Amino acid sequence: MEQRVSLITLGVRDVARARRFYEQLGWQGQEVDETVFFQANGQAIVLWDRQRLAEDAGIDGDTGASFSGVALAHNVRSAEEVDDVVTSAASAGATVTRAPRTTFYGGYAGCFRDLDGHVWEIAHNPGFPLDGDGNLTVPDLTGPPSDA
Amino acid sequence: MEQRVSLITLGVRDVARARRFYEQLGWQGQEVDETVFFQANGQAIVLWDRQRLAEDAGIDGDTGASFSGVALAHNVRSAEEVDDVVTSAASAGATVTRAPRTTFYGGYAGCFRDLDGHVWEIAHNPGFPLDGDGNLTVPDLTGPPSDA
Repeated sequence: MEQRVSLITLGVRDVARARRFYEQLGWQGQEVDETVFFQANGQAIVLWDRQRLAEDAGIDGDTGASFSGVALAHNVRSAEEVDDVVTSAASAGATVTRAPRTTFYGGYAGCFRDLDGHVWEIAHNPGFPLDGDGNLTVPDLTGPPSDA
Repeated sequence: MEQRVSLITLGVRDVARARRFYEQLGWQGQEVDETVFFQANGQAIVLWDRQRLAEDAGIDGDTGASFSGVALAHNVRSAEEVDDVVTSAASAGATVTRAPRTTFYGGYAGCFRDLDGHVWEIAHNPGFPLDGDGNLTVPDLTGPPSDA
C-alpha cells in the first residue's frame, strides 16, 4: 500500500448545504449523483450523504459522533492568512472551536468545525514547507534535537 | 481557502499500535513527541492520540464514535491490487467491512477499518486517472451523460 490518499470523503447531512459552505470559502466543485467532488492536491475531497457513505463502507449502527476522530489541516503561508480563512469560515456558518493563536510547535493556527462537525485546522507552520503548488513536505523530524 | 489538504490526522488510542499497523502495510514514518508523520502525496498522514487531538482542536465531550463520518480512499491500478491491499490489511488486524467487489461506479473496491475504526476504501476506479506519482485527477463529471 503506497503512502497516499486518493479521496477524502466527508459524510454530510445535506449535500447542497455542505457544498454551499465550501463554495463560500472559494472552492469550486463538480456534482454528480448528489455527490460533490472538489479537486485538491493530487486527490479529491468529496461530499456525500453520511448514511450512504456508512452503508457503502459496510458500516452498521452509525450513531453520529460528537467528534469524528479525524482532523484535516489546511496549511497556509502566513498568520494573517490563518485569520482570514478562519474569519471566512465563521462567516459561512462554521463553529470556531479554537480561535487562532500561537501553537506548541511554533506556528499559528485556529480550528473550526464545518456544518457537519468535520474539523479543520488552519495553520501556519514555518517548519513544514509548502511548495508553490501548496504541497506539503514533512521535514526530517528525527535529526539531532536543538539545544533550545 | 485553496482546495487542498496539508495533513490528515487520525486520532488513535495507542500511537505505537497504530504505527505498527500502517508499517505492516508497508508505510514508513517518522515519530516525534508520540506523533507519527507519514509523507503522502503532497501532504502528511499523522497518527496522534485521539484525546490530545480533540483537546488541541478545542473539542469537548468526545464520546467516541461508531463511525467517524469520514472515509479515506486509496485508489490503485488494478482489481488484483485491491485484493492484495485488503488482504494485507486484514492480516495486520484490520476489520474488513466490505469484501472487495465491483462497485456502482464501474470499479472494484473493498473497505476496511483500521485498529481505531478509521475507514479506508481500497479502490480500482478506471474513471479516475492516477498519474505516475499516484496523484488523482477528478475527470470532467458534468459532461453529457452517456446513453448507457
